[in-house]
Amino acid sequence: MTTDFSEMIDRRHTNSVKWDVKDNELPMWVADMDFRTAPGIIKALQAKVKTGIFGYEEVPDAYFQAVQHWYATEHNWTPDTAWMRFVTGVVPTISSAVRRVTNVGDNVLVQAPVYNIFYNSIVNNGRHVLSSDLVDHDGIYAIDWDDLATKMAAPLTTMMILCNPHNPVGKVWTADELAHIGQLAATNHVTVLSDEIHGDITDADHPYTPFASVNAVNAQNSLTCVSTSKTFNVAALHAATVIIPNEALRNLVDRGLNTDELAEPNAFAIPGVIAAYTTGADWVHAMNAQITANKQTLTAFIAANVPGLTVIEGHATYLVWIDCSQVTHDTQALCDFIRAKTGLFITAGAVYGGNGHDFVRINVACPAERLQDGLNRLATGVKDFQTQA
Amino acid sequence: MTTDFSEMIDRRHTNSVKWDVKDNELPMWVADMDFRTAPGIIKALQAKVKTGIFGYEEVPDAYFQAVQHWYATEHNWTPDTAWMRFVTGVVPTISSAVRRVTNVGDNVLVQAPVYNIFYNSIVNNGRHVLSSDLVDHDGIYAIDWDDLATKMAAPLTTMMILCNPHNPVGKVWTADELAHIGQLAATNHVTVLSDEIHGDITDADHPYTPFASVNAVNAQNSLTCVSTSKTFNVAALHAATVIIPNEALRNLVDRGLNTDELAEPNAFAIPGVIAAYTTGADWVHAMNAQITANKQTLTAFIAANVPGLTVIEGHATYLVWIDCSQVTHDTQALCDFIRAKTGLFITAGAVYGGNGHDFVRINVACPAERLQDGLNRLATGVKDFQTQA
Ligand SMILES: Cc1ncc(COP(=O)(O)O)c(C=O)c1O
Ligand SMILES: Cc1ncc(COP(=O)(O)O)c(C=O)c1O
Repeated sequence: MTTDFSEMIDRRHTNSVKWDVKDNELPMWVADMDFRTAPGIIKALQAKVKTGIFGYEEVPDAYFQAVQHWYATEHNWTPDTAWMRFVTGVVPTISSAVRRVTNVGDNVLVQAPVYNIFYNSIVNNGRHVLSSDLVDHDGIYAIDWDDLATKMAAPLTTMMILCNPHNPVGKVWTADELAHIGQLAATNHVTVLSDEIHGDITDADHPYTPFASVNAVNAQNSLTCVSTSKTFNVAALHAATVIIPNEALRNLVDRGLNTDELAEPNAFAIPGVIAAYTTGADWVHAMNAQITANKQTLTAFIAANVPGLTVIEGHATYLVWIDCSQVTHDTQALCDFIRAKTGLFITAGAVYGGNGHDFVRINVACPAERLQDGLNRLATGVKDFQTQA
Repeated sequence: MTTDFSEMIDRRHTNSVKWDVKDNELPMWVADMDFRTAPGIIKALQAKVKTGIFGYEEVPDAYFQAVQHWYATEHNWTPDTAWMRFVTGVVPTISSAVRRVTNVGDNVLVQAPVYNIFYNSIVNNGRHVLSSDLVDHDGIYAIDWDDLATKMAAPLTTMMILCNPHNPVGKVWTADELAHIGQLAATNHVTVLSDEIHGDITDADHPYTPFASVNAVNAQNSLTCVSTSKTFNVAALHAATVIIPNEALRNLVDRGLNTDELAEPNAFAIPGVIAAYTTGADWVHAMNAQITANKQTLTAFIAANVPGLTVIEGHATYLVWIDCSQVTHDTQALCDFIRAKTGLFITAGAVYGGNGHDFVRINVACPAERLQDGLNRLATGVKDFQTQA
């Protein structure tokens, strides 16, 4: 049984956050795919439902072994199962770790433009956001190493949240870059939380490198969050794993995960994740091929049909970051206009910080037919926006 | 399709927390039933699994309408759907509310002996436990109203966590008692969090009264937590509802629920709860009849065969509270002995506070055949404990 990535599944009226839109609207915003998940996962969930008993569930060794197997076979890293903890999600874990590892008033370092919810985890807990903004050199984002070193050294900086690979710019960090970040962090006693939720979703020739796999300095000074949620389109499975090689750090964070009630799996989390990591590799490779093709389609279409927009070349995530600065510096207005005019719902970049207000983010995890519909709407919307402006 | 409450389901090796025991052991501890859940829930979960897409899920109006329907038809209370918020569990909601409604160093009032996890929610958040212990008059627990009034009036007391009905003593509070508590709380500016997770599980002739249903004073000064989790044996569905009639209090708590990531449902929570509350009434009534019968069996058996033990008559929960003070004042030692000797795993009462060290708690939510096995082990264990002592 294989998944047909061209199937046009109707997700309206299914309680989907992404598809809670008007009848004429086409959502290409939140990080959620329009593909049915891998068959092995569905089978495992069916088997669990059949048992009919959904009492308090614990995490068996087989869960951690499945995580280990996945990272060994897919990413050339074999984390010890003793380093792992089950958690109900990546974002709650980030919030919990911010509370445990840093103090109120501390700086938490990020690299804007970055996944906007990082800001919530920092600000809602009374910490400060300190950004070492990525520098956009003609469409290639890079780290300003001097700036990063200065901000790491600030006395109130105690944690960095790294997005590896990076949402929304689609950047796959190299081992050298990760070692450099790790060395700066260790020197300055800054703990690195590496959010690797998008790590499985890359072009075939651009695999990602787990931060902690690079060297012992990185491993001993980091928490790594991984999940099947983006990879297999199971955000609402509420399952993720945090990997913490350093024992003292692990114990510190573990206590918070328990107090914050993030450590208990729902009835479906364990069988779902085990099935994903032990039976889902082919599905992920096929899904990645589809995403790579969709990104190429989008890039070619925009180059040919949407003057003024420049696609940032990214090799990770199914989220494409598009420079609209030749059209507007207020992409919120552009997105609102496009939505009202054509029904296409994409994300304005300002929420990600940095130079995000010049950008939009488009989710291409959908069948080619739906993508084409979206691209047509985009071309119309941008054209009409320029005419009207 | 009806559920056969006499079916002996083997739950070993299913990742069940309750059944993570040795081969010869019989668990009658944690609040989790050995019954298959209601058929309508299983059907709804099957339908959800079949969709194969488990992206971010939102809470539809139908969810809140189902909650309202259940309370209107089962408990003669029709809470406004606007008062309700979906949450992933009762305990996380208690912790979150403690953080939002009280300050570090405040007193949170409870009535020991009480569900031990309340203490974690208070202490782990840097608040103090203040108990107005229930008074045990020859097996009938009652509130010491003078003591409660004094403790409500303490300047640092800002919240009370009420267990309605009461775990572990099985007490169904009357409307008069609830009004009295509500009046003391309102007078002293103490917010009441009423944990009503066991409200559906009562003897047929002893229905429970929702705290907020009693009068406007109670409604306007309270948060009520309800859930399908105990009622339908779906603890790992990770779904509950908090009901807050007072708008200002609701907004205050709501913010915390979002920050603490407790407001987002997993893929199965919504269909499961809707099915439970709209199709599960007959199942619950049948389940309650079975529990009532099991409590009678246990009470008669102990009276006839286990001298020294006195069963506290409770009309709610499937947890039975048993006075062992004629045998020992250290029931932890008794429970350890019984487990080692007979394999029966029951809960020593000290964790619940108050006079709990004189008591054990036994979970009778199992087929009659399994209950009998447990009772035989209990009789042997207590007898041997007394001989050995
Ligand atoms: C970088 C990143 N981290 C975390 C998440 C969400 O993780 P979770 O749903 O497990 O909280 C997302 C979702 O888009 C993301 O892009
Ligand atoms: C009084 C009480 N509240 C809450 C819970 C647990 O609720 P949840 O699993 O929704 O956190 C229990 C479980 O035994 C309980 O007895």
